[in-house]
Amino acid sequence: MNGAESLIRTAVAAGVEVCFANPGTTEMPLVIALDTVPGMRAVLGLFEGACTGAADGYGRMSGKPALTLLHLGPGFANGIANLHNARRARSPIVNLIGDHATWHVGYDAPLTSDIVSLAKPVSAWVHTTRTANETARDGAEAIAAAIRYPGHVATLIVPSDCQQGESAGPLAPHPRQAAASVPESALSDSVTALRSGKPAALLLGGPALLERGLRAGATIAASTGCRLLCDTFPARLERGAGLPLVEKLPYFPEQAIEMLSRFAFLILAGTSAPVSFFGYPGIPSRLTPAECAPVVLSRPDEDTVGALEALAGRLNAGKDKGIAVPAGRPARPVGALTPRSLGEAVAALQPEGTIIMDEGATSGLPHFLVSAGAPRFTYLTITGGAIGQGLPCATGAAMACPDRRVVALQADGSGMYTLQALWTQAREGLDVTTIVCANRSYRVLRVELARAGVTEPGPQALALTDLTRPVIDWVELARGMGVRAARVETADALVLEFERALAEPGPNLIEAILP
Amino acid sequence: MNGAESLIRTAVAAGVEVCFANPGTTEMPLVIALDTVPGMRAVLGLFEGACTGAADGYGRMSGKPALTLLHLGPGFANGIANLHNARRARSPIVNLIGDHATWHVGYDAPLTSDIVSLAKPVSAWVHTTRTANETARDGAEAIAAAIRYPGHVATLIVPSDCQQGESAGPLAPHPRQAAASVPESALSDSVTALRSGKPAALLLGGPALLERGLRAGATIAASTGCRLLCDTFPARLERGAGLPLVEKLPYFPEQAIEMLSRFAFLILAGTSAPVSFFGYPGIPSRLTPAECAPVVLSRPDEDTVGALEALAGRLNAGKDKGIAVPAGRPARPVGALTPRSLGEAVAALQPEGTIIMDEGATSGLPHFLVSAGAPRFTYLTITGGAIGQGLPCATGAAMACPDRRVVALQADGSGMYTLQALWTQAREGLDVTTIVCANRSYRVLRVELARAGVTEPGPQALALTDLTRPVIDWVELARGMGVRAARVETADALVLEFERALAEPGPNLIEAILP
Repeated sequence: MNGAESLIRTAVAAGVEVCFANPGTTEMPLVIALDTVPGMRAVLGLFEGACTGAADGYGRMSGKPALTLLHLGPGFANGIANLHNARRARSPIVNLIGDHATWHVGYDAPLTSDIVSLAKPVSAWVHTTRTANETARDGAEAIAAAIRYPGHVATLIVPSDCQQGESAGPLAPHPRQAAASVPESALSDSVTALRSGKPAALLLGGPALLERGLRAGATIAASTGCRLLCDTFPARLERGAGLPLVEKLPYFPEQAIEMLSRFAFLILAGTSAPVSFFGYPGIPSRLTPAECAPVVLSRPDEDTVGALEALAGRLNAGKDKGIAVPAGRPARPVGALTPRSLGEAVAALQPEGTIIMDEGATSGLPHFLVSAGAPRFTYLTITGGAIGQGLPCATGAAMACPDRRVVALQADGSGMYTLQALWTQAREGLDVTTIVCANRSYRVLRVELARAGVTEPGPQALALTDLTRPVIDWVELARGMGVRAARVETADALVLEFERALAEPGPNLIEAILP
Repeated sequence: MNGAESLIRTAVAAGVEVCFANPGTTEMPLVIALDTVPGMRAVLGLFEGACTGAADGYGRMSGKPALTLLHLGPGFANGIANLHNARRARSPIVNLIGDHATWHVGYDAPLTSDIVSLAKPVSAWVHTTRTANETARDGAEAIAAAIRYPGHVATLIVPSDCQQGESAGPLAPHPRQAAASVPESALSDSVTALRSGKPAALLLGGPALLERGLRAGATIAASTGCRLLCDTFPARLERGAGLPLVEKLPYFPEQAIEMLSRFAFLILAGTSAPVSFFGYPGIPSRLTPAECAPVVLSRPDEDTVGALEALAGRLNAGKDKGIAVPAGRPARPVGALTPRSLGEAVAALQPEGTIIMDEGATSGLPHFLVSAGAPRFTYLTITGGAIGQGLPCATGAAMACPDRRVVALQADGSGMYTLQALWTQAREGLDVTTIVCANRSYRVLRVELARAGVTEPGPQALALTDLTRPVIDWVELARGMGVRAARVETADALVLEFERALAEPGPNLIEAILP
């Protein structure tokens, strides 16, 4: 058995089932092994950012790592932006990167580059295999690194001769390690803060935003009166009727600081003390003003759900005593198409179990605000700010959950980064409905120019934030990749098209023209 | 004057004229400065790979560096693959990357990453500005690094507060340094080899492939009987009637080694000893077999054209005594559309001064073989093997040469990587005709599977090299980005459409369906 086959067999034995791939010559033995070994589904992306973003979405929804299969340094580089998002989402991913044969790499052939230097900024674990016989061992270690709680990006570089050479065969997976419990002091500090009689908020992150964590958090809130908050860009948040309500921290730091200034304590559960997305002159980086003391209940790498349940116990708060959101949806909107009516249309119709991938940028927030009482759904966001995540992440989420509808709220500027993911949706027949929020500008940059005091941008600044010359026709782009598509210019038409889209299998796209 | 303005003024003073940009919040002061300072044209790309590839094409054709303006680590990462090609092409490029404010970067906000680690593999020079007042100095140094002979990628990271803060103003450019002359021994070794009476070849690279270098090389060849060769993937090669003929080294190592085994000496002029593109078991990395001794006339960083002319002088070969290719084109092809008839159609019609950007992959070679006698033209290739270079590089070449027609021979698989460049062509009204060589597969990987002994690939290997499920409709993709497009299925139709395309201003695209 060659090294490639030993590696794929090791991955299958560890429960890895999907490989998002865009291979080249140096990965051919691994490609062949995908056919030799039963149990690994290969999914082609036409650009590596589609592969890594899909692995992120798959990891968020399945809790399991996917493989990516990428071609040397440049192929990997194309996947870095979405790995940046995956790292921030703490998604488990194992990147397999082919490299030149160990005996060839020193000759500086055209595709040679320093892959390790490229990989380190987005990887918790990076290793280069040295012999064919070590390929299975390195694969098992990569998987163990990826699934270490709560989830990590692991990158294994496999020279082609290590794929081709003879190996001793696959290895059994490492035993999965439980998340570390929080120290006693974390629980007692949190109890003290929550019983101080002063206003407090509980900032939830990571697994605390899935059902068990939310219920524990809401139980604490019901018992102590604290507010439930989450990061502005959660990796995955369970939402909808019957679940507790959690507020997102505002995006702009002035608003977040103002909100947090109302609390004497901010209890951190599975996340870090919040900081401003960007640094603005005269505004602090830390969003917790002096009067608001952060208290660490659990760090991201500690058992957050266990910590929340233990804290509820310490507070004698009972079990699942939190306030749940009642069922309720907005009416189907009519009239002008705006971010607000777009959000209402989606919230009015999204079926139970929908996965919302929100890369709507300046058009995404209204849906969040009006969808709290919709039937239960999952909400995913762009965690690392690297735009071009929505379409790939939606693709991977649909792979992980074939019985659920995925709805991608997609800003047009960001969507152009990785539109190739639509083709993978068509190939795999995935039930993804993309709604392109087509305001035909990099709207957030217009906002940022205004924040910088530029009320009348010059022609070049305007041109660099404008997407109307020429207008992008998303209907043609989608059809060009085999995805059914329609354009709407009113809220009524969006409701009609969205209802139609939800009823048909496979991917489709609606271009929603916004002011 | 703030740091951003001092930087842009410094660049304009150094003769930099174009900035290929996809900025974000951290680059807003630089965006504003593009309007404040006259003389710098901002060109928007909808994906960073379109910007860096355009800067590469611009650098190859103008000999001058363009700026790129990119958004933090993830934005830069999206541009790495085409910077890899640019590095191999030795194109001059200055990347400007905004970063978080120096006082904010330590807080690990979502977009924070190790930009230096990402930049090093593709940059000859990397620096992070520390204060607003150093911005102009750092910019001048970046430009000097980029134009150091023969050309380099320089990357300057500019934190937002260094853009915003007060500076002492722009700086004058560093004096341009001449290329180093070759040592006497290089000339005498070359003379000895060429006068040995044994068969020799002259392998030209870098500036040796422009007119002066070619004429000097051909003069040497006429005097000594040596063969004229160039690398398989030259950055820029001047071709056509009236210029000397140069043969490309074959792509596959067996063929290249067989060719070079006919020579006792391989004189290297502005390039390195050739190595195999990939390492194949049992085949040497070095393409020069034991009987063929490499002789260094000039290294890539030495004055290659000067060395060739000096060598011609030592050989008393005269001046411009080389054999020129006579004028002659293939007839307009009729019948089936194949890579051969596609190449003939282009060569039959391409106007004088055409710039051919060949990312045709397995479909590109026939054009090269039949176009030697076409009216003078420029030939560009994908130098680093990082696919997705063709459309962006064609865009930048058209920016540099607005009075010339650019024809991009574009493989369909590679073209999907950076199709966003078509939008920039439409916005800027660039005279680029893209011919998509649509064989609807990653054909080269089918070849590689066969080379690996896999005559009947399994279903997953087939799926990973197949682009028919769904078929990509390039006509719709082009129209979706404002580019006129047509599809052809015969050679006759291609001739007709190509003639029409050449006659109209602005970009257009022809999808050529190949077997």
